Amino acid sequence: MDSFKIKLKKCWNKTQAYLCLGLDPALDKIPTSFRKHAHPFFAFNKEIIDHTADLVCAFKPQIAYYSGQSLEEDLLMTFEYLQKNYPHIPTILDAKRGDIGSTAEMYAKEAFEVYKADSVTLNPYMGMDTIEPFKVYKDKGLFILCRTSNLGSHEFQNLMTPTGKKLFEIVASATQQQSDEYWGMMGLVAGATHAQDISAIRTQAPELPLLVPGVGTQGGSLQEVVQNGRNSQGEGLLINISRAIIYAGGDGFEFGPKVRAAAMSWVEQMRAMK
Amino acid sequence: MDSFKIKLKKCWNKTQAYLCLGLDPALDKIPTSFRKHAHPFFAFNKEIIDHTADLVCAFKPQIAYYSGQSLEEDLLMTFEYLQKNYPHIPTILDAKRGDIGSTAEMYAKEAFEVYKADSVTLNPYMGMDTIEPFKVYKDKGLFILCRTSNLGSHEFQNLMTPTGKKLFEIVASATQQQSDEYWGMMGLVAGATHAQDISAIRTQAPELPLLVPGVGTQGGSLQEVVQNGRNSQGEGLLINISRAIIYAGGDGFEFGPKVRAAAMSWVEQMRAMK
Repeated sequence: MDSFKIKLKKCWNKTQAYLCLGLDPALDKIPTSFRKHAHPFFAFNKEIIDHTADLVCAFKPQIAYYSGQSLEEDLLMTFEYLQKNYPHIPTILDAKRGDIGSTAEMYAKEAFEVYKADSVTLNPYMGMDTIEPFKVYKDKGLFILCRTSNLGSHEFQNLMTPTGKKLFEIVASATQQQSDEYWGMMGLVAGATHAQDISAIRTQAPELPLLVPGVGTQGGSLQEVVQNGRNSQGEGLLINISRAIIYAGGDGFEFGPKVRAAAMSWVEQMRAMK
Repeated sequence: MDSFKIKLKKCWNKTQAYLCLGLDPALDKIPTSFRKHAHPFFAFNKEIIDHTADLVCAFKPQIAYYSGQSLEEDLLMTFEYLQKNYPHIPTILDAKRGDIGSTAEMYAKEAFEVYKADSVTLNPYMGMDTIEPFKVYKDKGLFILCRTSNLGSHEFQNLMTPTGKKLFEIVASATQQQSDEYWGMMGLVAGATHAQDISAIRTQAPELPLLVPGVGTQGGSLQEVVQNGRNSQGEGLLINISRAIIYAGGDGFEFGPKVRAAAMSWVEQMRAMK
């Protein structure tokens, strides 16, 4: 099977876009028809996946939406469905894990053995040594939180340090360094709501893939992200859209085609900027 | 039911010690007799809990050990068992979560509605605004990662900032501030392997409870932690021991009494330092 890196490269080529689709369902927001299903989130996700698979560069389920609603089984079924039917599309388990060695090993098992995800998001606060247990798995993608999309993200991430770099720039630089010695692919999470900081990240990590939340419902500018974030090959971006696509199907009437139309509209905007 | 704060205060008084017992089982390390059980980790935890409940100030399961081995149900059973049989003992879900608002809400549900834990550990990298969804739940305990016990924890946590404080001191100070406006109890995670930094944390947060990993298998000094970490009332500490107690039962012969003896030995050391 192809590595995360190869899968991603192929999807960038094929779609000529950067769409990462966030599969983050909430029980009170999905159409009633899915709510009645024995596996409501899997049924919902399956319909979305089948109508968008040719448009995306990655599917990214956020694990909290499953564990917080006691529906881990639906998450497992979603990953199994993707692996069986769309093995060429990269998957990202959005988990933002971070812990000491022995515990990090367990989180790596969660991501790469239980769910068999192609990549995972990780939190760097505890230090880059906590990333090591994930690097034991070759061919995976490891996205390190760098500059996040929430309003209060500047509080610690933007602190200036004696090196003249802000904390998020130091994280970007440390990730770039680790990337050189990892067989898989390392990347950074960079929120669209701070487009100027995406340029600063590109200075520290010129070619690493950036996973970019914050376009769509959170209001970040797609154009600024593409301009500031693409790498020298015009690639290097995974722009995540979740609610603006997965809830485009409204109450469920013509659900699949509406979701597809929403995804297509984002893809077309991205293609126009290439 | 008592709040986390009241429960903790009562356990400090009653045990005259600071023991937090980490329930972090691994399938290849627990005695064979438990491995054969339909719910191996629950059976293992139950035996430990029943033999140590009068000695501890908190039980702290680390969620990765359950989700990484597809045994979330055993974690749920462990919490239910504690709530039913030992409702006076505080529980800590060690999860180190951290994410934007809508996702943090789901993680708060995971901790406080699915597992019904009394408290949870959280990662501050994304900013203190990401703690807000947890504060909606009154009477809980929220432990913010500050200075962690791993070898590489200095990499970002010890970065100096223009305020003259290191990053971990700023996190301590921000947690102290948030603490004043929260009905429950906020605390900090402070690794025993950096005992001098525990003093620095006490300067920023004189009274907050400190959850201290790193004594025991990781090699931190119990005496230094108690000297530098207790607050003005001689309390304010939860010193976590996990492997050095839960695996004291060896291959399973006289498992319960051996585990109890190990826990008692730690408690007696703590009492001698009071």
